[in-house]
Amino acid sequence: MAEAKKLSGAGLRGQVAGKTALSTVGQTGSGLTYRGYDVKDLAAHCQFEEVAHLILKGELPNQAELDAYKARLKDLRSLPQALKDVLELIPKDAHPMDVMRTGCSMLGNLETEEDFGQQQDATDRLLAAFPSIICYWYRFSHDGVRIDENTDDDSVGAHFLHMLRGEKPSTLHEQTMNVSLILYAEHEFNASTFTARVCASTLSDMHSCVTAAIGSLRGPLHGGANEAAMDMIERFTSADHAEKEMLGMLERKEKIMGFGHAIYATSDPRNEIIKQWSEKLAKDVGDTVLYPVSVRCEEVMWREKKLFCNADFFHASAYHFMGIPTKLFTPIFVMSRLTGWAAHVMEQRADNRIIRPSAEYVGVAPRTVEPIESR
Amino acid sequence: MAEAKKLSGAGLRGQVAGKTALSTVGQTGSGLTYRGYDVKDLAAHCQFEEVAHLILKGELPNQAELDAYKARLKDLRSLPQALKDVLELIPKDAHPMDVMRTGCSMLGNLETEEDFGQQQDATDRLLAAFPSIICYWYRFSHDGVRIDENTDDDSVGAHFLHMLRGEKPSTLHEQTMNVSLILYAEHEFNASTFTARVCASTLSDMHSCVTAAIGSLRGPLHGGANEAAMDMIERFTSADHAEKEMLGMLERKEKIMGFGHAIYATSDPRNEIIKQWSEKLAKDVGDTVLYPVSVRCEEVMWREKKLFCNADFFHASAYHFMGIPTKLFTPIFVMSRLTGWAAHVMEQRADNRIIRPSAEYVGVAPRTVEPIESR
Ligand SMILES: CC(C)(COP(=O)(O)OP(=O)(O)OC[C@H]1O[C@@H](n2cnc3c(N)ncnc32)[C@H](O)[C@@H]1OP(=O)(O)O)[C@@H](O)C(=O)NCCC(=O)NCCS
Ligand SMILES: CC(C)(COP(=O)(O)OP(=O)(O)OC[C@H]1O[C@@H](n2cnc3c(N)ncnc32)[C@H](O)[C@@H]1OP(=O)(O)O)[C@@H](O)C(=O)NCCC(=O)NCCS
Repeated sequence: MAEAKKLSGAGLRGQVAGKTALSTVGQTGSGLTYRGYDVKDLAAHCQFEEVAHLILKGELPNQAELDAYKARLKDLRSLPQALKDVLELIPKDAHPMDVMRTGCSMLGNLETEEDFGQQQDATDRLLAAFPSIICYWYRFSHDGVRIDENTDDDSVGAHFLHMLRGEKPSTLHEQTMNVSLILYAEHEFNASTFTARVCASTLSDMHSCVTAAIGSLRGPLHGGANEAAMDMIERFTSADHAEKEMLGMLERKEKIMGFGHAIYATSDPRNEIIKQWSEKLAKDVGDTVLYPVSVRCEEVMWREKKLFCNADFFHASAYHFMGIPTKLFTPIFVMSRLTGWAAHVMEQRADNRIIRPSAEYVGVAPRTVEPIESR
Repeated sequence: MAEAKKLSGAGLRGQVAGKTALSTVGQTGSGLTYRGYDVKDLAAHCQFEEVAHLILKGELPNQAELDAYKARLKDLRSLPQALKDVLELIPKDAHPMDVMRTGCSMLGNLETEEDFGQQQDATDRLLAAFPSIICYWYRFSHDGVRIDENTDDDSVGAHFLHMLRGEKPSTLHEQTMNVSLILYAEHEFNASTFTARVCASTLSDMHSCVTAAIGSLRGPLHGGANEAAMDMIERFTSADHAEKEMLGMLERKEKIMGFGHAIYATSDPRNEIIKQWSEKLAKDVGDTVLYPVSVRCEEVMWREKKLFCNADFFHASAYHFMGIPTKLFTPIFVMSRLTGWAAHVMEQRADNRIIRPSAEYVGVAPRTVEPIESR
């Protein structure tokens, strides 16, 4: 074996691990582009389904293409009975990301991607089915209700909110969900996407890749951060209280969820956008605590540590103002990021070599097995 | 953002991506060591449960430790009813790796690893439960039988064979399974293990990491290769026929499963060992075709392409001689490799930074969103 190249930074930080045409992070524009479009531009002018079309198929759709894509996704919402049966077997106190992971994996048994020619179909199906999966389980386990997953809502976001709450969402809520899904859709070689690509590089199927990515996103250093941020800000009764507590946490060198980023150095472009929507929602519900608390957290972290809010921090208050239970925050991330994961899987397949790095050995020197009697 | 380091080789080949004390591949001894012990030495002298103890806990056990560990694993074999119900919902024609992935994911809902203090328990449980999971599904879906997963066999390998066939295995079969499980237990930063580590680096739970790894192992370039090798050699009616077909495949530049390796350059140390057991089993069943066919394949590939058998190639005939259905080959790999995956997850957690590489952007230049009417 040739001498392996030394590790540049822990966590492969700053090491190019492959090519992508899907997005840039921290390079041009506001910092995040999907196939050349600034995420700010997309969030201001597009529907999530347009962005999904862009990411998965390469271009923004025209009106006829968008209508057809939305109609297709609407047709794919209902779940096979065996999957519903599985969801009914998952207890109420389960972690919703475990439910998503299991739902995706089970669907892989029932509607297996038999060859790569089916990759777009498998993806569309998951895009349409994820909101159904999480809401079916949530409403059954928490309210004893077997929901009808075939609502007539015309967007992924409204479909989700409708099933969750049993009524059509307001325009403000539908708009917020739309922006949120756009912001979370794609983010280059983040940990869950990289997981999906490593899995794809063995030429495994789409459900395996997405199931694997869900498992990665579940971690508190990644998608789980929006829930952890919520748990934290909920404990603060005022902006001053937040400041005091944050200073204590910083002194104790605790990690504060929803802040910092592996690539961005001074700000996360998604934060500015979701923060505006959180502010609108705060006004809508007449909030006088959570939003000011969140703003103060942002100020304190920047002042004290030059750490900035990432995409997750103001998502916490925004989702909360919409009445979404905290434990469903990360599953929403899944509904959106699926587009990026699947597009990366397709990209990996199109120019593949198995992803198999080397390791630096730091273990014991060669030794021989002693008979068990003399150990 | 600082300039990212260029990609050294596609698939991160030859790039160190982290540290490990668990194994070396292609460095010393016969080429594969687990915590300093040559795999040849371990396969000749140890039980799989000793090796699992070594990999997971750092040292080979003494007799009392081994007895306790085996008794513990025996106690953890039975499956919760909700998991059995899920397995009964998975159709007969499902891919058994999808069953393993779903079984592992479902168990994560029922017995969630709540904090890392439970990592050894969660691992032992999976080690004991995987044979039960695959056999429960297989026997129910194929034979309509609800097996009793609590056999009195004292090894993982015998437990599996007993449930699969409804009778205690012969000594030769138990020994072969033992060696096979040892050979497959750990292999540094292979694709499935690296998947598990990326997942672990977000601080996700053990079931997410193992579920993700199963998805990666499923791919035909990785664990799926033993099944693909079987499908191929089964078509050959004689050694001469095999030679003719192989030459045709090579001419058509087809990939031949069970050959080649990302790290080893001239041989895979696991091949020599499993080949001996395949030969013993061939004699045992009076085979005059499959083993000679396999040997000829090996000769042709080396003569023509200097490509050598990896661990998977003679595993195909060995498992086949034991009467194991081809589609269960890769699930056996899971039962064994779980030890390596879990040990890598523990190692990653002990010194963690989120694994988040960079990508080289090869997409379109910045552009602005056109109104949908003018697209
Ligand atoms: C996102 C994250 C995982 C990036 O990790 P990373 O690239 O390894 O970050 P670094 O280790 O380079 O961080 C640099 C320093 O800032 C500190 N830091 C980073 N994020 C921090 C946070 N949220 N709270 C407190 N300190 C933080 C690190 O501890 C490190 O300090 P040190 O040099 O004294 O060890 C990390 O910022 C984090 O854990 N954030 C909280 C979780 C989160 O919000 N995740 C969602 C990301 S979208
Ligand atoms: C294991 C494997 C994925 C390693 O991949 P890798 O590190 O990317 O291998 P490389 O691309 O460096 O292989 C070098 C050359 O040998 C060829 N090669 C490697 N394995 C081959 C095989 N099994 N059959 C035919 N050609 C093979 C490659 O095509 C390549 O040829 P090229 O340079 O003309 O493109 C690869 O050998 C393979 O696909 N083997 C078959 C699947 C298998 O048995 N997997 C189980 C591994 S334990």
